[in-house]
Amino acid sequence: MRKIKMGLIGLGSRGKWWLEELLKTDDVEVTSVCDTHEDRMEAGRAMCAEKYGRDVFGSVDWHDIVSRDDGSEAVVISTNWNDHVKIAVEAMKAGKYAGIEVGPAQSIRQCWDLVRTYEQTKVPCMMLENCCYNREEMTVLNMVKKGLFGELLHCQGGYQHDLRAISDSMAREHERAWQYLHRNAELYPTHELGPIMKYLGINRGNRIMSLNSMASKARGLKKFIDEKCGPDHPFKGLEFRLGDVITTTLRCANGETVVLTHDTNSPRPYSRGGRVQGTCGIWMEDLHSIHIEGRSEPHKWQPMDDYYGEFEHPLWKKSAASDFTGGHGGMDRLVMRAFIEAVRRGIQTPIDVYDSATLMSVAVLSEESIALGSAPVAVPDFTDGLWLKREPAPKSIFSLAEVDDSLFEGKVEF
Amino acid sequence: MRKIKMGLIGLGSRGKWWLEELLKTDDVEVTSVCDTHEDRMEAGRAMCAEKYGRDVFGSVDWHDIVSRDDGSEAVVISTNWNDHVKIAVEAMKAGKYAGIEVGPAQSIRQCWDLVRTYEQTKVPCMMLENCCYNREEMTVLNMVKKGLFGELLHCQGGYQHDLRAISDSMAREHERAWQYLHRNAELYPTHELGPIMKYLGINRGNRIMSLNSMASKARGLKKFIDEKCGPDHPFKGLEFRLGDVITTTLRCANGETVVLTHDTNSPRPYSRGGRVQGTCGIWMEDLHSIHIEGRSEPHKWQPMDDYYGEFEHPLWKKSAASDFTGGHGGMDRLVMRAFIEAVRRGIQTPIDVYDSATLMSVAVLSEESIALGSAPVAVPDFTDGLWLKREPAPKSIFSLAEVDDSLFEGKVEF
Repeated sequence: MRKIKMGLIGLGSRGKWWLEELLKTDDVEVTSVCDTHEDRMEAGRAMCAEKYGRDVFGSVDWHDIVSRDDGSEAVVISTNWNDHVKIAVEAMKAGKYAGIEVGPAQSIRQCWDLVRTYEQTKVPCMMLENCCYNREEMTVLNMVKKGLFGELLHCQGGYQHDLRAISDSMAREHERAWQYLHRNAELYPTHELGPIMKYLGINRGNRIMSLNSMASKARGLKKFIDEKCGPDHPFKGLEFRLGDVITTTLRCANGETVVLTHDTNSPRPYSRGGRVQGTCGIWMEDLHSIHIEGRSEPHKWQPMDDYYGEFEHPLWKKSAASDFTGGHGGMDRLVMRAFIEAVRRGIQTPIDVYDSATLMSVAVLSEESIALGSAPVAVPDFTDGLWLKREPAPKSIFSLAEVDDSLFEGKVEF
Repeated sequence: MRKIKMGLIGLGSRGKWWLEELLKTDDVEVTSVCDTHEDRMEAGRAMCAEKYGRDVFGSVDWHDIVSRDDGSEAVVISTNWNDHVKIAVEAMKAGKYAGIEVGPAQSIRQCWDLVRTYEQTKVPCMMLENCCYNREEMTVLNMVKKGLFGELLHCQGGYQHDLRAISDSMAREHERAWQYLHRNAELYPTHELGPIMKYLGINRGNRIMSLNSMASKARGLKKFIDEKCGPDHPFKGLEFRLGDVITTTLRCANGETVVLTHDTNSPRPYSRGGRVQGTCGIWMEDLHSIHIEGRSEPHKWQPMDDYYGEFEHPLWKKSAASDFTGGHGGMDRLVMRAFIEAVRRGIQTPIDVYDSATLMSVAVLSEESIALGSAPVAVPDFTDGLWLKREPAPKSIFSLAEVDDSLFEGKVEF
């Protein structure tokens, strides 16, 4: 397969992980690395030199990476949240596919900037939303597309992850704590909303019309810092604006509803809390269970495991994906493979600029709703009406728009 | 113990069950029975005659029961939803405790009518919300009041009960189907909201300030009737207005949030989906699991069963409640015992008129919110400010306001 050249911007914990991963990827060549911290950038260069046996370009200014005429066709953006959009816009203008790590927009205008730049340049932009490629969610996607749940009515999901214990380091380095200090919003909905958007066909025959958001009081992080962190902690004694539990409800053009929960400052086990309720059945991630009318005993759950045999997504069933280690159980590698495939073939990405803009907009819109006392807020149609009748998604084993079993004959290599 | 006399109004499936239960209750005498269907009323009289060996008064007009000067101190109202309030109001005016079965109000004015009548008569009115007395919810209540969860942040619950299979009979006899035809609202929140209100101390130092409600499209019941019911079904071909999944979010004065789910027309196993998230831990009914910081392994669930030994509510632990059969696993008998105790002692009911009005108002307010595009709707303060500083709830083993362990010395009989 043709080797893809790409640059990496942002070498914090996530960006460094991507660098390690991409240096192990035979059909990718890392052509440049960037971080505003020179030590991180130099460490990245050293990793490249060790792998390639030669120097690789590095800079503390992302403009140098984006504008560099080195044959690279893509950039992977793992910077702080605030810089995602401006870098992606310039990357598209330079003709380079933009792969953006997960994160919220800071304004709705940012989302439109992504969309308009794509429309002018025709260079795709993809949020690297890894959970779209997780085994359980992909299996549910396959079941949805095969009609097991009937007509979908309602979905749920959450980012329910006790992150307090990393607040100590986060406070100094990570965007998240600064956002938590100042923004009361559903800041991190994409891990659950990414898969849900694909179940519901958002931006292809459906769209999100409006949302409401409601925030509980904020207690957890201040309590944690007061009780567990030293007196020199930079956020000692400060009040965080982010409510501990944020509930966001979305209504779709086709009449489905969605509930999202953000809960990262409370003691609780991790869960994305996925749920799909259709006219023929329900999936519930917390129980890893399914009930399908006609298949399951009336009023009884069945283990999700009973369905993997018949309905595991072929990307997982017929490839080596289940053998992947690290990267959140393989889904990180899959989302990057999906990005790489789109770059190589010059096709649209399976999470496209409209999906990315929609995903990134939720934080801003939920912030507006909370500020307005949970008033309903309209979700812009970033497709300007294209969703009514989109061109088909490219045929691809990584497609999240449909599941084309004919692409998975024999063993699938990538 | 002094024998309490009471009348029963409404002898549908629920009312008939109460009659059977109360005829087995040694310290209660059923003095009169009523149903608009004469055959039901006469069947009720026959049951009484068989038990008591003498005739008992019966009427098809509830006014006869309420106004009857027969020494009765209470009425139990199990009629169709629309008649609950007007009967309760007249019962209070006649000096009889009003025990109202679960059901929504039809207007906010109805809720105020209950409240104002109580304030004029000082005769209590209690929604017989049985789930407040279920073993798991009472154990959680005990843990909440003992501070295990820390400061509460967020609760969830639902009435998630696939009722389609009884739609065929329901359609002819039961209020529910008529409401489903015409109202798009959170019609049945009390099984989960009753316990949640008690966890949160609603109407005693806290109150619900506002709510938003969102409805999915309506598909399930029409599909079921089309596919499974005969051609003569009275609702054949009709469209139901009630969305299949209704999500309601509530915000409390003390900053907690609550999410309610109504889902009765879709294939799924039963669940009330209870959840309590506090600053120190979480309970999740679907998993029957708990996580308490410092007790549970970090990021791990513990079975709820691990907590019953230490925290089972004393009403369950020290009484014969666990031996009760029928009546939804004992909770029905407990809620009636709580009502009987209040009547006998002439004290306030543990679910009082303010609680009942609040519970009944949610349907109307959610209907308004849905009609207004999920706009936030203010929840009236039915206490007119009393919630700021209420008189203490009476000391009682049935109290839901506090758990007074000193009342449970030795074996508890009732």
